[in-house]
Amino acid sequence: MSFASGSVSPLTLNRLSVYLRCLRRLQSQGIERISSKDLAGEFRLSAAQFRKDLAQFGEFGIRGIGYDLNDLIERLERLLGLDIAHHMVVVGMGNLGRALVRYPGFNGSNFQIVAGLDVDPAIVGLEIGSLKVQPFEQLHQIVERAGARIGLLAVPAPVAQSAYENMVAAGIRAVLNFAPVRLHHHATVYTKNVDLKINLEELSFFLQSPDQSQPEAL
Amino acid sequence: MSFASGSVSPLTLNRLSVYLRCLRRLQSQGIERISSKDLAGEFRLSAAQFRKDLAQFGEFGIRGIGYDLNDLIERLERLLGLDIAHHMVVVGMGNLGRALVRYPGFNGSNFQIVAGLDVDPAIVGLEIGSLKVQPFEQLHQIVERAGARIGLLAVPAPVAQSAYENMVAAGIRAVLNFAPVRLHHHATVYTKNVDLKINLEELSFFLQSPDQSQPEAL
Repeated sequence: MSFASGSVSPLTLNRLSVYLRCLRRLQSQGIERISSKDLAGEFRLSAAQFRKDLAQFGEFGIRGIGYDLNDLIERLERLLGLDIAHHMVVVGMGNLGRALVRYPGFNGSNFQIVAGLDVDPAIVGLEIGSLKVQPFEQLHQIVERAGARIGLLAVPAPVAQSAYENMVAAGIRAVLNFAPVRLHHHATVYTKNVDLKINLEELSFFLQSPDQSQPEAL
Repeated sequence: MSFASGSVSPLTLNRLSVYLRCLRRLQSQGIERISSKDLAGEFRLSAAQFRKDLAQFGEFGIRGIGYDLNDLIERLERLLGLDIAHHMVVVGMGNLGRALVRYPGFNGSNFQIVAGLDVDPAIVGLEIGSLKVQPFEQLHQIVERAGARIGLLAVPAPVAQSAYENMVAAGIRAVLNFAPVRLHHHATVYTKNVDLKINLEELSFFLQSPDQSQPEAL
């Protein structure tokens, strides 16, 4: 599979993830085939947007017949790289790092945390979930040994940039940044900021619009 | 401002939040006016989508002249309810709850955590950041006294539904659920699941498509 460089936006990717969730839910209900119109109706999505998003990646579904659910799910998983195991390291083992290591939402997925690291000697050596916190100085060896390509950055904002530089130097190829600070990111390292406030802004909108009904899916 | 019931989707709201972030960045660079085309180019958004999203909420911008940045930001903030203070309670003060209480990304925003609660007597009374953990039994009084309308649910998955019911009974009107479980939600309580895996799926896509360049904004 190949794409023109830069042709896929993060918003499109987020929608693909949402579609995948919706499709898996239908699959778990025993449904085998669905039209874009019914899918859109069920989950309050746009059918046109759905078809347009998929069209970027090839031929899906058959006009008038709809989509084979198993096939579509499998292709979306492949497209999103969910058919391969991803090893991740957590940098910063304060409350947030510990919560990430223990986050049960990763269980049974292809994303696995293989190490948690910290600079603080009082934290190094602690057992968090099934991991023992490792010293940050060993980042390079740990990343190499585990074949980790994803880093979860959970350090305080003032040291986030320098921790990020170390992760990049150690061979990390993609970073999920939880520190509320904009990183100067390396062009070759995919760097995504997790902003909890964006979820609150959505709640806030609905709080002041009480006649809004809540959609099912998201 | 009024809307037809159910007319605004969560995906639209997320885009409005993204627009707001982009606009604020331009504002901080001293820019006062921008066209949808330039905005889209700068942040790799769709200009047509941007105009369509805004059009749901009234008249914005002037054809051929573009948008007044200050005005647009102010109107988006009002639209998203960001011009009023929101008091929040955190239910579940394990690692995740503590990380939320300490999350510096809420500082200086209109979202303020006023209390953290837990059922565990070993946790109740602990000082986390500037808060002392309160007993969960006092939820009702605390919500009422603080005028809290938003709840952050950070308990283990097996007890999430019952904690949620308690929050609703106590008067919470919107819930951000961090437990990796689907809640049976009340129709009148806006309930949003925070799924960390969705961010990882985006990274995963880019890891297997190394010729993808990363967009600036998100």
